Amino acid sequence: MNEPLRAAVIGAGYWGPNLARNFRTSPHWDLVAVCDLDEAKAAKVVGPRSTVEVMTSTEALLARDDVDAVAIATPASTHAAIAMAALRAGKHVVVEKPIADNSADAQAMVDLADERGLVLMVDHTFCYTPPVLKIRELVADGSLGDVLFIDSVRINLGLVQPDVDVFWDLAPHDLSILDFVLPGGLEPVGIAAQGADPIGAGQTCVGYLTLPLASGAIAHVHVNWLSPTKIRQMVVGGSKQTVVWDDLQPQQRLTVYDRGVELGAEQPDKATTNISYRLGDAWAPALPEREALGAMVAEFAGAIREGRAPRTDGRAGLRVLKVLEAASRSLADGGRLVTGSTVEVSA
Amino acid sequence: MNEPLRAAVIGAGYWGPNLARNFRTSPHWDLVAVCDLDEAKAAKVVGPRSTVEVMTSTEALLARDDVDAVAIATPASTHAAIAMAALRAGKHVVVEKPIADNSADAQAMVDLADERGLVLMVDHTFCYTPPVLKIRELVADGSLGDVLFIDSVRINLGLVQPDVDVFWDLAPHDLSILDFVLPGGLEPVGIAAQGADPIGAGQTCVGYLTLPLASGAIAHVHVNWLSPTKIRQMVVGGSKQTVVWDDLQPQQRLTVYDRGVELGAEQPDKATTNISYRLGDAWAPALPEREALGAMVAEFAGAIREGRAPRTDGRAGLRVLKVLEAASRSLADGGRLVTGSTVEVSA
Amino acid sequence: MNEPLRAAVIGAGYWGPNLARNFRTSPHWDLVAVCDLDEAKAAKVVGPRSTVEVMTSTEALLARDDVDAVAIATPASTHAAIAMAALRAGKHVVVEKPIADNSADAQAMVDLADERGLVLMVDHTFCYTPPVLKIRELVADGSLGDVLFIDSVRINLGLVQPDVDVFWDLAPHDLSILDFVLPGGLEPVGIAAQGADPIGAGQTCVGYLTLPLASGAIAHVHVNWLSPTKIRQMVVGGSKQTVVWDDLQPQQRLTVYDRGVELGAEQPDKATTNISYRLGDAWAPALPEREALGAMVAEFAGAIREGRAPRTDGRAGLRVLKVLEAASRSLADGGRLVTGSTVEVSA
Amino acid sequence: MNEPLRAAVIGAGYWGPNLARNFRTSPHWDLVAVCDLDEAKAAKVVGPRSTVEVMTSTEALLARDDVDAVAIATPASTHAAIAMAALRAGKHVVVEKPIADNSADAQAMVDLADERGLVLMVDHTFCYTPPVLKIRELVADGSLGDVLFIDSVRINLGLVQPDVDVFWDLAPHDLSILDFVLPGGLEPVGIAAQGADPIGAGQTCVGYLTLPLASGAIAHVHVNWLSPTKIRQMVVGGSKQTVVWDDLQPQQRLTVYDRGVELGAEQPDKATTNISYRLGDAWAPALPEREALGAMVAEFAGAIREGRAPRTDGRAGLRVLKVLEAASRSLADGGRLVTGSTVEVSA
Repeated sequence: MNEPLRAAVIGAGYWGPNLARNFRTSPHWDLVAVCDLDEAKAAKVVGPRSTVEVMTSTEALLARDDVDAVAIATPASTHAAIAMAALRAGKHVVVEKPIADNSADAQAMVDLADERGLVLMVDHTFCYTPPVLKIRELVADGSLGDVLFIDSVRINLGLVQPDVDVFWDLAPHDLSILDFVLPGGLEPVGIAAQGADPIGAGQTCVGYLTLPLASGAIAHVHVNWLSPTKIRQMVVGGSKQTVVWDDLQPQQRLTVYDRGVELGAEQPDKATTNISYRLGDAWAPALPEREALGAMVAEFAGAIREGRAPRTDGRAGLRVLKVLEAASRSLADGGRLVTGSTVEVSA
Repeated sequence: MNEPLRAAVIGAGYWGPNLARNFRTSPHWDLVAVCDLDEAKAAKVVGPRSTVEVMTSTEALLARDDVDAVAIATPASTHAAIAMAALRAGKHVVVEKPIADNSADAQAMVDLADERGLVLMVDHTFCYTPPVLKIRELVADGSLGDVLFIDSVRINLGLVQPDVDVFWDLAPHDLSILDFVLPGGLEPVGIAAQGADPIGAGQTCVGYLTLPLASGAIAHVHVNWLSPTKIRQMVVGGSKQTVVWDDLQPQQRLTVYDRGVELGAEQPDKATTNISYRLGDAWAPALPEREALGAMVAEFAGAIREGRAPRTDGRAGLRVLKVLEAASRSLADGGRLVTGSTVEVSA
Repeated sequence: MNEPLRAAVIGAGYWGPNLARNFRTSPHWDLVAVCDLDEAKAAKVVGPRSTVEVMTSTEALLARDDVDAVAIATPASTHAAIAMAALRAGKHVVVEKPIADNSADAQAMVDLADERGLVLMVDHTFCYTPPVLKIRELVADGSLGDVLFIDSVRINLGLVQPDVDVFWDLAPHDLSILDFVLPGGLEPVGIAAQGADPIGAGQTCVGYLTLPLASGAIAHVHVNWLSPTKIRQMVVGGSKQTVVWDDLQPQQRLTVYDRGVELGAEQPDKATTNISYRLGDAWAPALPEREALGAMVAEFAGAIREGRAPRTDGRAGLRVLKVLEAASRSLADGGRLVTGSTVEVSA
Repeated sequence: MNEPLRAAVIGAGYWGPNLARNFRTSPHWDLVAVCDLDEAKAAKVVGPRSTVEVMTSTEALLARDDVDAVAIATPASTHAAIAMAALRAGKHVVVEKPIADNSADAQAMVDLADERGLVLMVDHTFCYTPPVLKIRELVADGSLGDVLFIDSVRINLGLVQPDVDVFWDLAPHDLSILDFVLPGGLEPVGIAAQGADPIGAGQTCVGYLTLPLASGAIAHVHVNWLSPTKIRQMVVGGSKQTVVWDDLQPQQRLTVYDRGVELGAEQPDKATTNISYRLGDAWAPALPEREALGAMVAEFAGAIREGRAPRTDGRAGLRVLKVLEAASRSLADGGRLVTGSTVEVSA
C-alpha cells in the first residue's frame, strides 16, 4: 500500500468529529490536524494522548506543506470561501452537503478544481451506504427495469434551524441519492414544492417535493422536522421489480419484490385496460454492515491517487443544489411547477 | 331489542358480498334480498340453503313494502340514479364511496334525503375501524393538541382501472378519514394534485395530493397503484402528541408519541430559534379487533331508528367528492393550487 | 364437478361456527345440519333465513341417510364416543384436535375407521395454512438440507382452563406441524417437559417441551398462557438453509435464509474447529392468502371421494397424542427425559 | 471533576478494542497502555499519532505505579491468573465474562479482592444497556408485580468454538441479566439443560436452560449458534404487567403491556377456574441511545472512588458461573434437574 495521504478537518461542530474519526482509522489517510475557531472544540475532537494537531487558523492550515487534502464541515454559507482558498492552496477538497449556499459559488468551485486538476468531492454520505450502493446496482444492471416512480420519506424530530428550511436541511440526502441511483443523474423536467410552517418557526418545517422525470416517471420527497417518530423509507418502483428500503430495519433494510403491473399491447381499443400482474417472491439481498464514512474517505483517497472524479463529485453537488434552488422558487410561488431552463442542472 | 330492520343489497360485484355478509349477521338487520342484473352473481352471494331472495330488477326491489333500506354497491356512475329512485320509494340509503361521480348529483341526493326525512349514508368504511375511531377521539379530546400535519400513504399493487384514476379509486379512503377526524370536517383552503402515468395506462397511477388547511396545518395524501408492497400508514402530528397508524401491524396499529417540538415565546428576536423538544414515552392504545362493516351497518340502523344523521352522512360524502373534483382540476392544470370558491365544500 | 358431499357439524361452541362456515361456502360440501345439545347455540350458528337444520340429538343425526360425514367439535373427552358412533353409522369423520383424550381410544378410532373403510381425519388446521405447506415443501424437496433444529414458540394471553394444561391446549398445534413437516412424521427418541404454574391455577401455564430426534436434531416447543403479547414463531434450521415463520407479520410470514454454518472435513485433528459460514441473501416466498379451514374441508372431501387417507389422518392425530401423553409423564417426573417404548408412537 | 483514573487494557483480541475505545473517551479515565503478547495487535488498537503505550508483558504492566486499574479481555482460562496477579499488585480489576473458567478460582478472586479492599468487577455489558436498566427498574419498583416467568432467546449465526459450548459462550449474557433484574440475584432452585450438536461440531450448538425459581416462577434461556437470523428477545411476565424486550427493534426495544391474567380467590372449589384478564394499553418507555460500555467504565470508576461494590461485582460473576457449571452437569446427565446444594450459588 502507498503511504497514507495527509488530511485535515476544518470544523469541529456536529459532523466534523465523524469525519475526523474516519480519517483517523482509515488505512488510506493520516489525520494531521483538526481546525476550528473554537480551540476547545477542536481539542475535544482530537482527544487526549494524541499528536494530531489542534489549529484555529484556516490560513495557517492551508499554508502547510504536509497537508494534501482538507475536509470542510463548517456552516454551508462558508463552504465556498474556504473551499476556494483550499483549492488555490493546492489542496484536494471534500465538503459537507450542500456544496455551497448558491449555485454560482458552486459552479466557481467546480471550475477552479477543474482548472487546478484537484479533486472536489461532496460528502453525500448516503451514497456510500450498502443499501444505496445496492439500489444503484439494481437500477444499473436492469434488475428493476425502467424506473417508474421513486418515493422518499425522511421524517423525524429535527433541529428547527434559524437560517435554513427543512428542504435545505434534509432533502440534500434524498436528492443526492436520486442523483446517485438514476442513470444520468438527477435531471428533473420540473420541480414543485409545497410546505407548511404550522408552529410559526419562520421556516418551512414540513415539505413535499415533486419531480417529474423526462421518462414519464415521477420522484417525490417528503421531509419533515415535526415527526416524533423516525421514518426513513424509499421505494424505487420499476417495470420489472421494485425495491423498498427501510433504513430503520437493520435486519432487512432492502426488500426487492419480483412483482409489478404491466400494460399489455394486444387489446389497445378495449374498454378494459389490459393489465397483467406479476406476484412473485420477495428477496432481501445480504448487505455488509460497515460505516459509510469509511467508504467515503476511501473513495476520496482513490480519486486523488488515480486522478479521476470521485463518485460524488462537485458536479453532483451542483445538480443537487440547483434542485434545491428551484424548490425554493416553487415554494415562493405557491407550489407552481418550475420548468424549463430554470431547472437546467447539467454543469 | 327492536325488530330488525329489513335491508337489500344492490350490486353483487366486489363489495356487495361484504355488505351482504354484514347485514346478514347483524342483530340490527334482516337481509331480505340481493339484487344484481347478473342473477348468477346475486345467487352466489346469497349461497345455498338460504331464503334470502335473489332479484334482478331494482324497480321491483324498490317497489317492495318489506324493505326499509338499501345498500348500493354498483359502479359510481350509477349511484345517483339508483339512490334517487330508492329515496323516492321511501327507502333509507347507504351508498358505496364515492357518493356519486359528480357533486351536482351528490347535492341532489343530499337534498332529496333531507326533503323526505330519510337517512342518506356513505359507506366510508375506514371511519368505523377501531384505529380511526381512536384517532378521532385523540383529536377531539385534545390529546394531540393542535393538528400540525397529516400525512397519509396508501400504496399497493392495485387494479388499474379504465375509467377512474388512482385519486378517485383510493383517495376517497384517505379523504373520508381526514373528514372524520378533523374537527369541522374536511375544509382545505386549497388543493394541489400531482401525478404520473409511467406505464401508459391512460390514467394517473401514482398520485400526490397536498391540502393546506385554514389553521396553517397541511395534509398530504400519497396514493399509488404500482407498488408491489402494501403501505397503509397515516401520521397525525399534533402540538402535544403525534399518532402513527400502521395498518399492517396487527399487533400495534396505533402508536402515540408524547414527543414534539415547540416554539418558545421568550426570545422572539434572537437569531437562534427558541425551540424545545419533548422526548417522552410512546404508548399503544388497546384496540378491539372487530370488523368495521359490522359497526357501519349498526350505525346505519341507529341513525334510522333515532331519526338522526349517521356519522358518515351524505354531506361527508359530498365534501370528499368536491375535493376529488378539485384534485382533478389541479391535475389538469399542472398541479396548480386550486383555491377560493372552487373548493368551497360546505354543503 | 361432482355433487357436493353432505356434512353435519356436531358442537356449536368455539370452533364449530368456523367449521360450519367453511362447509357452507365450500363447493365440495352441502351443510345439512348443525347439532348441539344447546339448541339456541346451534340455531345461532345456522343463522336466519337458512334451511340448514338445527338438531339436538347426535343419535338422530347419525341415523339420517342424507349425511355423508360429520365434523366433531365437542370437548376432547367426548371425541371418542361420538366418533365411534359416527363410524359405526357409516359416516366419515373429521375431529377437532386432540383426536381423543387418551391413546387407547384414539387407537380404537383408527382401527374402526380402517375396518369400515371410512375416512378418519383430524382437524390439524395449521397444516393447511400456506406457510406450513411451504415449509413442508422446503423440507421435502431438500431446500433446507438436513433439519438441524426446530424451535416453536406459541405464547399469548390464553384461556386458563380447568381440565387441561397448556401443553394439551396449545402444543397440539406445534406437534401437528412438526408431524406434518418432518419426513416420516413426529417420531422423537425422547421427550422432556418442564413447566410452571406461577399463578396457582392448578394447571401448568408455562411449558417447555424438548424432543431429541433420531437424526441428532432437536425440536423444542414453548407454550405459554400468561404472555400478554402474542408470539407465533417457528424456526426450522437446516444444513443448507433456514426458514423463519413469523405468523404475526402478514406481509412476510416466511423468510428463508441462504445462510448457515458447516463443519469442514479437512482438518479433523486441529484444535480449531474448521467451520465455514454461508452469508447469502434471504427470500420471502409469495404465499396465497386463504383460509386454512377451506383447504381442510376440501382435503376431507378429496380423501372421501378418492378413498385415500387425508393428509392429517387419524394416525397423525395418534402420534401427536402419544407425545402429549409422554410429556405429561415427563412433567410428573420432574422433567426427566422419557425414552424407549413409552414414546413409541408409530400406530 | 476529579483527576481521571489511570487504566490499562490487557488483551487486544475481539473485545479489547471496545474496552480501549471506551476508556479512552471516558471523562473518568485516562488510558495509559494496551498490553498483548502480540505487539502488532496492541499497536493496532492504540492506532497512529497516539502516546498510549503498547506493552507485551503483563508483569511489566502490573509493576507500573501509574496504573490504577486493569481491564482483562483475554481467554477465560487465563482470567484467574492475571486477575490474581493484578489484585496482588494493588490494581482494581474488571474482567470479561465469564469471570473465570471454574468457580473455585472465581471464589479465590472474590476473596482476594475483599481482603485487599480492591474493586473486582465483571463486564456484564448488557446490564449497562438502557433496556436492561429499565427492566430492572420495572421489577424493583413493583410495576410488573410478581415475576411469573422470564423467557430469553439469544440466537444467531455464531462462531462455533473449539473449547466452549454454546451455553458457556452465550448464556452468560442471559444469566447476568437475570442476576441483575431479579430481586436478590440469580438463585434458581434447580437447573436443567438440554442441548444438541446436530452438525457434529464436538460441542453443544443449540441449548435450552430451564431454571425454576423459589417463588414458583420459571426462567428459560434458549441459546443457539446455528440460526442465520438473529433473535434477541426477552419476555419478563409479571402479575401486573409484562415487558417484552426486542433488541433488534431500535425504534422500540421495550414494550410494557398492562395486561395479564389473575386468579380470583372467591370460588376456590368450583370446577371452573376463576380467572380474570386485564387488557389494557401497551407503552414503550423512552430510552436513551448510548453505548453500554461507556456506562460500564463509569460505574467501574465510581465504585473505585466511592470504595463500594460495583453493580456487577465479582459475586455476580460467581453466581453466573455456578449456574453454568450446574448446566454442564445437567447436560452430562441427560437433562436431569440439578438441585440442592450443588446449585447453591450465594457466595
